[in-house]
Amino acid sequence: MSYGFALKGDICFSDGPASLKTLPGGYIVCLDGLCAGAWERLPERYAGLPLLDYSGKLVIPGLADLHTHAPQYAFRGAGMDLELLEWLDAHVFPEESKYSDLGYADRAYTIFADALRRGPNTRACVFATVHAPATMLLMDKLEASGLVTFVGKVNMDRNGPYPLREESAAKSAEDTVRWAEECLNRRYRNTRPILTPRFIPSCSDELMRLLKEIQARYGLPLQSHLSENQSECDWVSELCPGSATYGDAYASFGLFGGGVPTVMAHCVQSGDREIALMKRNGVYVAHCPQSNTNLVSGIAPARKFLKNGLKAGLGSDVAGGCHTSIFRAMSDAIQASKLYWRLVDQGCRPLSIEEAFYLGTVGGGSFFGKAGAFEEGFEFDAVIIDESGTPSPSPLGMKERLARAIYLSSDCGVIAKFVRGSKIL
Amino acid sequence: MSYGFALKGDICFSDGPASLKTLPGGYIVCLDGLCAGAWERLPERYAGLPLLDYSGKLVIPGLADLHTHAPQYAFRGAGMDLELLEWLDAHVFPEESKYSDLGYADRAYTIFADALRRGPNTRACVFATVHAPATMLLMDKLEASGLVTFVGKVNMDRNGPYPLREESAAKSAEDTVRWAEECLNRRYRNTRPILTPRFIPSCSDELMRLLKEIQARYGLPLQSHLSENQSECDWVSELCPGSATYGDAYASFGLFGGGVPTVMAHCVQSGDREIALMKRNGVYVAHCPQSNTNLVSGIAPARKFLKNGLKAGLGSDVAGGCHTSIFRAMSDAIQASKLYWRLVDQGCRPLSIEEAFYLGTVGGGSFFGKAGAFEEGFEFDAVIIDESGTPSPSPLGMKERLARAIYLSSDCGVIAKFVRGSKIL
Repeated sequence: MSYGFALKGDICFSDGPASLKTLPGGYIVCLDGLCAGAWERLPERYAGLPLLDYSGKLVIPGLADLHTHAPQYAFRGAGMDLELLEWLDAHVFPEESKYSDLGYADRAYTIFADALRRGPNTRACVFATVHAPATMLLMDKLEASGLVTFVGKVNMDRNGPYPLREESAAKSAEDTVRWAEECLNRRYRNTRPILTPRFIPSCSDELMRLLKEIQARYGLPLQSHLSENQSECDWVSELCPGSATYGDAYASFGLFGGGVPTVMAHCVQSGDREIALMKRNGVYVAHCPQSNTNLVSGIAPARKFLKNGLKAGLGSDVAGGCHTSIFRAMSDAIQASKLYWRLVDQGCRPLSIEEAFYLGTVGGGSFFGKAGAFEEGFEFDAVIIDESGTPSPSPLGMKERLARAIYLSSDCGVIAKFVRGSKIL
Repeated sequence: MSYGFALKGDICFSDGPASLKTLPGGYIVCLDGLCAGAWERLPERYAGLPLLDYSGKLVIPGLADLHTHAPQYAFRGAGMDLELLEWLDAHVFPEESKYSDLGYADRAYTIFADALRRGPNTRACVFATVHAPATMLLMDKLEASGLVTFVGKVNMDRNGPYPLREESAAKSAEDTVRWAEECLNRRYRNTRPILTPRFIPSCSDELMRLLKEIQARYGLPLQSHLSENQSECDWVSELCPGSATYGDAYASFGLFGGGVPTVMAHCVQSGDREIALMKRNGVYVAHCPQSNTNLVSGIAPARKFLKNGLKAGLGSDVAGGCHTSIFRAMSDAIQASKLYWRLVDQGCRPLSIEEAFYLGTVGGGSFFGKAGAFEEGFEFDAVIIDESGTPSPSPLGMKERLARAIYLSSDCGVIAKFVRGSKIL
């Protein structure tokens, strides 16, 4: 028999966009890093496997963060009094400029990678900065953490301050090629490069064309920002007068999905036409509710994403958002959807616990392949939750316990974590 | 010299509704439970006092929770998929019914009091249930915790399920008198009774008249709910056709401030007329942003409360809200105010960090007397914050550290807490 183990606990995972599978005192089995299934009783054929006994503990799939900025972790929770474009100038660009200094990057990324490792997320799409050396350092640290990540060296050759802004499209592309090659050389197991133009206002047309060539050559997925803030959208309209929507601006360079894994953060201002294009092209939404509130962008129409069958997951968007845990993003998403329903559109009913949990597990997890559920053939990511910080005077059902883990994530610690079958915590 | 001590640390408190006083490496002095002042350097006259050295730690006044339900702590974070009136029937009333059992109340209130003691709040206005014996048990536990609280036995003689609903106005009043007498007998130091009609729909006119008499006889302050949810407001209009506003319904019984300390939770639907009446009568708003989101009530116009000079503080409203910490209520209040500005009224600019901190400290603290700031003559409530859970790669200013304590409260532990000069943690 191949390498494997069985794990016992109070198991809970999504078995559909709006439904939960719960197996109190149930079993999951890991064989060679993959999940063999989930059962009420351990099948006889696995009786010989070592058993990890987490009886009484909540066991869920690892959570997926579809959008976060590693260098911004350093100032999360501070400077939340501005809107997007002013905030970029006042806080983001000055902080990101520091990552030309590898000593600083080492200190800051050590803190970030450690926080990510200790929380309930097992997968993440991560923005670094324009600096290739610091990006490699971050990738080394994330590889060492055991997490599964896509990490992007950022591209930006216009509308940002020197020296953070890259000196030309050609230089930005050249650095990106060198970085992509270096990633190949390092033969990471869990860490993959992802093409990362910051957003349309930061990237010249020439750079976007060069990035398309690089994408084709190296087969890189892509992450960026889309329709976050109204002023940003107005700016994109000016910059790309030929594009009917912000999404069309990416699409005009062939950088908007359509066979290539692509994730766009925010989509707060996305209208029906943009949503339809995302659907057609298989573009993922990274829904980042807390960031959209903190930066006063508004509330993204999450119900419309689900209704239209978009591929969608949740993002922490550190440091537009303050919290890395995707549990927090789940409760933020539910809360934002309630206010959207109350204040914006009574045709969009609020998200349920089941839907938020789906988005934060298999919804976003699917960007990484088969991840985010305890289904046969899925990569085995599991998180064991300590509920001792949330004692209850009477026994609770599985859904109530899951809801508390989501709403009270700060009091629910992670005591063990498995990624692709390896115990990383 | 009387009993006292000096405390050194990175001190931060509100010295106005929109301003912060910060004294890194500063001193506060406690004499006989009162604050003697705050200084950059310790005045010579206090040089002989024992010094508690919290150098490098953030030191803030205790936070005040103007609205929480002790019995609902048991189910916080679960059952957040309903609006107010349905939620009361489905979750609140069944849970509160359990408190006729003193064994259950003992288990549940032990958990609640312990959680409150460990967090950053030092003062709270607390709803218990209709059950006087369980309410006394709660008061004993809160007194033992060292926290300063107003605690109310709830009154409700209509529109609730038996046996939770009291059998008559007379019986409800009789139990309330007995409870008030018992509170006097126990000679608590920090725990005081507060009159607590649940809300207009729960209390008959006869009961309200009897409560007014009890209030006059025992000099009791009052806490209740006001204009939380639209269906609730419609119901109050039906029940009290003679009252122009919900607030007028309380006022018609003489139970809406005007010389008697009175705090009303929510005020989400309050219009200009109700706000003017609150101002005139000195009624406090307990602004409970998370609860208003969770129960899909909407967003309270916090900016209007401030603009109109209402007395106002923050409430956790456990379990409409899930989190006891008023740090969380501060960040929720800022976030809600941003969405209010974006989606409802661009004339109401978002709350600042300074304003949210003011509301959560001296704003709400003033309901308890002189509390919530390190001013001379204020009661000495101080909280020492451990920031080791939020490491930073570069040094942070005092306002940034305060902002992080507010936004990242879950990662900022309380390592020591003083109430009225006594160290309770």
